[in-house]
Amino acid sequence: MSHEPDLPQALVSLKNVDNLLRCPICFDYLNISMMAQQCSHTFCSLCIRKFLSYKSQCPVCNLATTETDLRNNRILDDIVKSFQATRQRLLQSPPMSPKPPSS
Amino acid sequence: MSHEPDLPQALVSLKNVDNLLRCPICFDYLNISMMAQQCSHTFCSLCIRKFLSYKSQCPVCNLATTETDLRNNRILDDIVKSFQATRQRLLQSPPMSPKPPSS
Ligand SMILES: [Zn+2]
Ligand SMILES: [Zn+2]
Ligand SMILES: [Zn+2]
Ligand SMILES: [Zn+2]
Repeated sequence: MSHEPDLPQALVSLKNVDNLLRCPICFDYLNISMMAQQCSHTFCSLCIRKFLSYKSQCPVCNLATTETDLRNNRILDDIVKSFQATRQRLLQSPPMSPKPPSS
Repeated sequence: MSHEPDLPQALVSLKNVDNLLRCPICFDYLNISMMAQQCSHTFCSLCIRKFLSYKSQCPVCNLATTETDLRNNRILDDIVKSFQATRQRLLQSPPMSPKPPSS
């Protein structure tokens, strides 16, 4: 119990951002983000293509949607990458200035 | 100098995410995000409409673009909101378990 880090608290408060970066189909981080252009709901490319192959609607809002309505949402891929890197760093790195033991 | 918080370090490592959530035109956080559907570059709605009114191309990659090519990118608006809330919390909140003074 040498130093009580604040990092878990930072991570908890990032949970909302974390949730938004996940695919509503597989619940993992978005992987090659594709947006349905009418409703702007976003999924992994593979997840939404598989879904649309048996049902032609958005799995979130049920709006009629086909593969031709999908658009890359590349900025999300970049955000996911940066966010994951940050998350790893927050989980691994020790606090910056641990107090020396008051001897 | 009662407790050296780790929060600034967490904020530094979130800088990359922060950058991605900013508009390439005004450099502020994206406000009503609109994506150019061919290149998927994303801007504030007002910023990109103003730009396209005098030049019909994407300001980032120069691809021919008009207002009809713009699509809402709503998930980014949600991410910006959550990120800003987190940022405020990280900046304001004191560390969770401040050590009692070793009297
Ligand atoms: Zn998925
Ligand atoms: Zn939808
Ligand atoms: Zn802007
Ligand atoms: Zn572009």
